[in-house]
Amino acid sequence: MANDRRVDEPAGSAAASSRDRLIAAAQQLYWEQGVSSTTPRQVMQVSGVGQGSLYHHFPAKHELAQAAIAVTVADALATAEGELTSGSPARERLIQYLTRPRDALAGCRVGRLTYEQYVIDDDALNEPVRQYFRRLIALVQDVFAELPGMDEGGSRRRAYAAVALIQGGYVLSRALDEPAALDSAVSGFVDVLNGDAGLP
Amino acid sequence: MANDRRVDEPAGSAAASSRDRLIAAAQQLYWEQGVSSTTPRQVMQVSGVGQGSLYHHFPAKHELAQAAIAVTVADALATAEGELTSGSPARERLIQYLTRPRDALAGCRVGRLTYEQYVIDDDALNEPVRQYFRRLIALVQDVFAELPGMDEGGSRRRAYAAVALIQGGYVLSRALDEPAALDSAVSGFVDVLNGDAGLP
Repeated sequence: MANDRRVDEPAGSAAASSRDRLIAAAQQLYWEQGVSSTTPRQVMQVSGVGQGSLYHHFPAKHELAQAAIAVTVADALATAEGELTSGSPARERLIQYLTRPRDALAGCRVGRLTYEQYVIDDDALNEPVRQYFRRLIALVQDVFAELPGMDEGGSRRRAYAAVALIQGGYVLSRALDEPAALDSAVSGFVDVLNGDAGLP
Repeated sequence: MANDRRVDEPAGSAAASSRDRLIAAAQQLYWEQGVSSTTPRQVMQVSGVGQGSLYHHFPAKHELAQAAIAVTVADALATAEGELTSGSPARERLIQYLTRPRDALAGCRVGRLTYEQYVIDDDALNEPVRQYFRRLIALVQDVFAELPGMDEGGSRRRAYAAVALIQGGYVLSRALDEPAALDSAVSGFVDVLNGDAGLP
């Protein structure tokens, strides 16, 4: 609607920055309260961007959700990739990925999307989440595969276990309202990995 | 409201059975679509119980949610307790608990509640979920503690890891739309446990 549009926004970098602020606000709100509960009004409040600009960049809520989830997934993968493909020995890289400090009570920014009906029912929102986990498991599997004597099935199964462990640690921390639950789960897994006679 | 009440229901066992059917319907719907999305109308349709009886047994949605979550938690704990306290050797009991067939794509009936804002915001609904995970972790810890040479911290951390792994396996199966993901994660964890030199 024309009377909802604000035209007080310059084109170019300032416009790009409104778009980025809208995405950053959506990411934050999705993390805190989920996609379906997030209203355009909240996105405007958190971003400080006006309604005209919101509807200019994202005519529908779905388009904002797609853009915000894409950025969340890209950021999360970049972090994991940095840890898992660094120059350190394979075992250290695994430990670094597993023990990275995480905001356990807030939940995984990507993982929590898998429990949202709004996301589950929407292939365009689901697909980046699926790609995230596929890529993350592949990255972790490549590191396990570097360990001597590890066959493909073994590295694949251990990668699923490692990625599942982090996701489940978030679930436990949230369920118990206990930030340390994720740490305990990670430490238990690292204990077992350290004792694993199949690993060097 | 008086005109919403049906009085065509006998007292005693039939009334108890309406209550049970309402709870069973709520459990099923919460599992499929979450607590907040479940309407009284859906509960009536799935249970085949009328509106008068619904409001007689559960004057408010919150009371039905409390009752249904309590039954879900009790059932899930009874299953885990059966596996974890059977007469088998400790290692076999752990494997039995970990490898039990699970409907991976549907998600954990209890775990999925931890991502629902409606549940998170409500202490009376949250508390049974918290009790479930506390009790489950304690049960698993007791089994790890039976293994020779295991200290308290070691069994506690491994219990968090085992319970987290199952929860995270559900997250992966749902995220990837891949029923086998949970199995892969469990197999990877069992591989590592089997190789754990700290375990007999």
